[in-house]
Amino acid sequence: MTELGVVYRNIKRADRAATDALAEFGSATVHEAMGRVGLMKPYMRPIYPGALISGTAVTVLLHPGDNWMMHVVAEQIKPGDIVVAAITAECTDGYFGDLLGTSFKARGARGLIIDAGVRDVKVLTEMGFPVWSKCVSAKGTIKATIGSVNVPVVCAGALVNPGDALVADDDGVVVVPSAQAEDTLKKAKAREANEGDKRAKLAAGVLGLDMYKMREPLEKAGLRYVD
Amino acid sequence: MTELGVVYRNIKRADRAATDALAEFGSATVHEAMGRVGLMKPYMRPIYPGALISGTAVTVLLHPGDNWMMHVVAEQIKPGDIVVAAITAECTDGYFGDLLGTSFKARGARGLIIDAGVRDVKVLTEMGFPVWSKCVSAKGTIKATIGSVNVPVVCAGALVNPGDALVADDDGVVVVPSAQAEDTLKKAKAREANEGDKRAKLAAGVLGLDMYKMREPLEKAGLRYVD
Amino acid sequence: MTELGVVYRNIKRADRAATDALAEFGSATVHEAMGRVGLMKPYMRPIYPGALISGTAVTVLLHPGDNWMMHVVAEQIKPGDIVVAAITAECTDGYFGDLLGTSFKARGARGLIIDAGVRDVKVLTEMGFPVWSKCVSAKGTIKATIGSVNVPVVCAGALVNPGDALVADDDGVVVVPSAQAEDTLKKAKAREANEGDKRAKLAAGVLGLDMYKMREPLEKAGLRYVD
Amino acid sequence: MTELGVVYRNIKRADRAATDALAEFGSATVHEAMGRVGLMKPYMRPIYPGALISGTAVTVLLHPGDNWMMHVVAEQIKPGDIVVAAITAECTDGYFGDLLGTSFKARGARGLIIDAGVRDVKVLTEMGFPVWSKCVSAKGTIKATIGSVNVPVVCAGALVNPGDALVADDDGVVVVPSAQAEDTLKKAKAREANEGDKRAKLAAGVLGLDMYKMREPLEKAGLRYVD
Amino acid sequence: MTELGVVYRNIKRADRAATDALAEFGSATVHEAMGRVGLMKPYMRPIYPGALISGTAVTVLLHPGDNWMMHVVAEQIKPGDIVVAAITAECTDGYFGDLLGTSFKARGARGLIIDAGVRDVKVLTEMGFPVWSKCVSAKGTIKATIGSVNVPVVCAGALVNPGDALVADDDGVVVVPSAQAEDTLKKAKAREANEGDKRAKLAAGVLGLDMYKMREPLEKAGLRYVD
Amino acid sequence: MTELGVVYRNIKRADRAATDALAEFGSATVHEAMGRVGLMKPYMRPIYPGALISGTAVTVLLHPGDNWMMHVVAEQIKPGDIVVAAITAECTDGYFGDLLGTSFKARGARGLIIDAGVRDVKVLTEMGFPVWSKCVSAKGTIKATIGSVNVPVVCAGALVNPGDALVADDDGVVVVPSAQAEDTLKKAKAREANEGDKRAKLAAGVLGLDMYKMREPLEKAGLRYVD
Repeated sequence: MTELGVVYRNIKRADRAATDALAEFGSATVHEAMGRVGLMKPYMRPIYPGALISGTAVTVLLHPGDNWMMHVVAEQIKPGDIVVAAITAECTDGYFGDLLGTSFKARGARGLIIDAGVRDVKVLTEMGFPVWSKCVSAKGTIKATIGSVNVPVVCAGALVNPGDALVADDDGVVVVPSAQAEDTLKKAKAREANEGDKRAKLAAGVLGLDMYKMREPLEKAGLRYVD
Repeated sequence: MTELGVVYRNIKRADRAATDALAEFGSATVHEAMGRVGLMKPYMRPIYPGALISGTAVTVLLHPGDNWMMHVVAEQIKPGDIVVAAITAECTDGYFGDLLGTSFKARGARGLIIDAGVRDVKVLTEMGFPVWSKCVSAKGTIKATIGSVNVPVVCAGALVNPGDALVADDDGVVVVPSAQAEDTLKKAKAREANEGDKRAKLAAGVLGLDMYKMREPLEKAGLRYVD
Repeated sequence: MTELGVVYRNIKRADRAATDALAEFGSATVHEAMGRVGLMKPYMRPIYPGALISGTAVTVLLHPGDNWMMHVVAEQIKPGDIVVAAITAECTDGYFGDLLGTSFKARGARGLIIDAGVRDVKVLTEMGFPVWSKCVSAKGTIKATIGSVNVPVVCAGALVNPGDALVADDDGVVVVPSAQAEDTLKKAKAREANEGDKRAKLAAGVLGLDMYKMREPLEKAGLRYVD
Repeated sequence: MTELGVVYRNIKRADRAATDALAEFGSATVHEAMGRVGLMKPYMRPIYPGALISGTAVTVLLHPGDNWMMHVVAEQIKPGDIVVAAITAECTDGYFGDLLGTSFKARGARGLIIDAGVRDVKVLTEMGFPVWSKCVSAKGTIKATIGSVNVPVVCAGALVNPGDALVADDDGVVVVPSAQAEDTLKKAKAREANEGDKRAKLAAGVLGLDMYKMREPLEKAGLRYVD
Repeated sequence: MTELGVVYRNIKRADRAATDALAEFGSATVHEAMGRVGLMKPYMRPIYPGALISGTAVTVLLHPGDNWMMHVVAEQIKPGDIVVAAITAECTDGYFGDLLGTSFKARGARGLIIDAGVRDVKVLTEMGFPVWSKCVSAKGTIKATIGSVNVPVVCAGALVNPGDALVADDDGVVVVPSAQAEDTLKKAKAREANEGDKRAKLAAGVLGLDMYKMREPLEKAGLRYVD
Repeated sequence: MTELGVVYRNIKRADRAATDALAEFGSATVHEAMGRVGLMKPYMRPIYPGALISGTAVTVLLHPGDNWMMHVVAEQIKPGDIVVAAITAECTDGYFGDLLGTSFKARGARGLIIDAGVRDVKVLTEMGFPVWSKCVSAKGTIKATIGSVNVPVVCAGALVNPGDALVADDDGVVVVPSAQAEDTLKKAKAREANEGDKRAKLAAGVLGLDMYKMREPLEKAGLRYVD
């Protein structure tokens, strides 16, 4: 799968309008719309609460303790992209800080998803540049070994192909294959269409048991009540 | 221990006044008052800082990846309750989101304690509906298998019987068996009675060594000072 | 290495001015200035975001579930110190709460670094007394066994000698041996000298590839671009 | 739930014949027969492969780093018992070694299940005294604080009442409430009745798809084949 | 990436001879030959020591707590295959036991790689059917939800495409993309060609420093010796 | 603490006779004799059961993913030494395999203690060269960055100075400061002096309660019996 030492310059990005529109639904709804696949592992957490982005993936594959390729991927960023960084082995080092954050932001990146550590989180928070990471670590990295840019990567248990759409918020990070972005958007819209109505009913005290007509199937499944 | 497929409708709840009064002391003091037992494991964290609740437990036992019984337990909630959700195996899925949160809140629940994942944490935070959970995950669940409501459950390493009192805050979640709620309240009050005085002394620079008369027992235990 | 039952009263603290000046650079820059050694493991997290301190270490070695020595170390605190607490085995108990926090603060401590749990985090946050810890736990401790004060300790994977300088912030905790405080300060200053200039360039869209002249070494290392 | 400082001398043990007969079915089959509840968490591992025991639970509740009650529980062991040790907080210390193993064995214990550490595993292995534990650790414990014997305990996520039946092998540890031992045995026997037949068919190349008549339900569930 | 509800019957398997020949080199050498990519995470451990296999991947994607698709994948096994099982979320359940092991073996499978739990490990060991898994658990699963067979999956952090070659032994599990099997074999052979010679020299006391001519580069890198 | 880029050739090793004699007592007894300090964390496990060694420490500090210094430390090994390898950050890579094992053995090393991964464990087992490690991983390392040899290191939570005595067996790894080796040996002998007698009594059914005269102190501590 993984070529080392290659930078793919031309990637097919997911439909821009669909990708951008996915943000409003959030990762949980988009994950449902996908059929409950494509979620990164829940250890991926945002560096500050409330961040919510969608965008197209540019990927970078790095070696443990080496962030040289972060500078290479910066050049491949186009406005609306999110950088997805995978490491060839487990690593908690802080690959990314406020200088790279400044550079990525200037290139138009909406955020970073990294299966390792990040640092300068206070400044990145002040800058409003969101990062989802495995951990926070002050430990810096060296620049000695080359990896790749825009190859398929596995990040936090999810396969990410260059150009895939991503949705990231407080609930996690979901990957939407580029060919499915528009279809997923449709399904997400459909899911949310009657959510307001449902919420109003539930707020009024109506039970899901009744609203979703669950009493009969539960009884069939053998549920019994004891007074 | 664990019956599957049963909903107990009538449970004996801990004394309401005592349960409600426990909140003011917080989980740390209540845990001390209990003799240092009954604490859930420290991986249970609130979705937002500052939440502080006490209440009576309604319990629900769920299967991995299946939140059907969440709708069943909703009907059993009475004002002042806290829902305690245990899973029959390790699971990080997001069993609970803003729709269920709306329903639980409408029924009078004060919060949710769940040994699994939660999602829509941004909306739940805005709603002021506190959840203590093992993790946050966008991953939703199915509705296929029945569990039980108001059976004894083990949640995050602690045994919870239906009707037990619970105290949950930034420091964790403590379970107070319903028969012990009033006695625990008394002990918690006693512990706090002279805390203000102690705090004032310590703030004035008095040492715990002197305030608690520890110098002699420390010397007896063999502690020696080297200049 | 580890004497038990001893309190060293006289320790040689790192240069005060240098130690205090390190705070402004933060743990990430100081760690770089140290040659990327001396960082505690990334599981050490602050109880609230935004805290940033430097100070001189007074150390305390405690037994699992026993915080007796916390009162002993309180007496050894001088203004500008940070207490570093190590445990002789893995433990998640809450060794430290608001009363000890009040005492430590009154003695002039700037914070606590503990390789175990802490409690009363809401009050400690309100007091503005920062703690970096492995976890938060309501579980209190007993006072039965003596440890030591101001002996060398291993805390979260880092060796801390009494009097060492420490820098702690959102990115982690770095230990600077007392003899190296001034030299490390110089190196940290040198690192930051041209950061503002770099940041401005990167913000203007200049690539690190060009600013750091990386294109040639990357090509030599074998990196190839594919259109 | 948890009284501290009490030793219950008289407990009602699960039916001896049923308890002893459960061993032959192993933890996986017994867990199925129970309806898939009552399993301890999978971090509980045997100190040597191949051990397989069933027995009746005598329980002991210990404090972190303190094994005093191990000597108290020894007196309560009757032949055919298995000791279940729970700790009031997370602990990895080695509570149990070859001397206690010798004592437990002499009293008729068949093994130990402990939600903490064990040591002297080489000698315990040579003695043929099996232990299921969270970890192995050379660290010993003190004898300073009292806990309880034969109270209900939560061990590795499972509730164990004194007298419950236990089955432990390479696959894990299952708790069978004493009142359910005989019924569980019946169900386990029924499950295994035609296992030999099934195994023979599968060994001959018959597919589970056909043997269990799954093709139709899979098709109904929407499974499609692509050539 | 992940279609649900589909079984691909025709997959292009890696070259048989090359795949089979990879076993002799072991996962460490093959991983080196691959350029140090393609390794599953080190939490994947064999159920017994000494197992060593290579083979072609048939993949199965399962839901948490549901092993229905295990019976579907059994039919797609051809002699020389290794089944790779991925789960759509974190799960520790025991998806696979001796009955399925008998079936897989009868179909010609050489082993199972599963990012979840396995059970009946004693019998599987006696059968000589090796499994690499995240854990061992007696907990069984249900058969309610369909996944997919022979779609690309992420297993323990590695991307596996149907037909890829796999090498698994005590050191871990490596994935070799099917198109690279022959080339990787060549590289592995080249790596091992002079290993015997090296081993003899090292056994005779020759230092790697001299054998690999490292003294000069180490000196250039700044290494200094202190007597 | 940690100088980088230095090799100390002359270190003061712990007394040879005392160091060698410690092996017979094992890590648990030696840890007790030390006053329960100096134990590495219990995640350190031997690659095969039954290994038992003592020896003098030569230390090596490595960077993540880089084993260059392993060849440098090889030259500093003297017969009776054990190599202790620490990494400047968390890493699971396999730093050490059968070639280095051959070299270390030829130089007289008795084993390796490494706070990272090891590979070729099958061959190392066949060679009888024991390794205690954090994990097993096929992933190899590069040779690009220099660390140090024979500086003080923190390995798995324990401080190791060059020349310290080490005891490693199935129960874990204990560090004995070189100046304390002889005294620790004496204490270990004293502890074991009457173990045989105790074991015989316990095997005969005498209770620890009586042998250690615990009944009175337990009663004083408040323990009560309920029939």
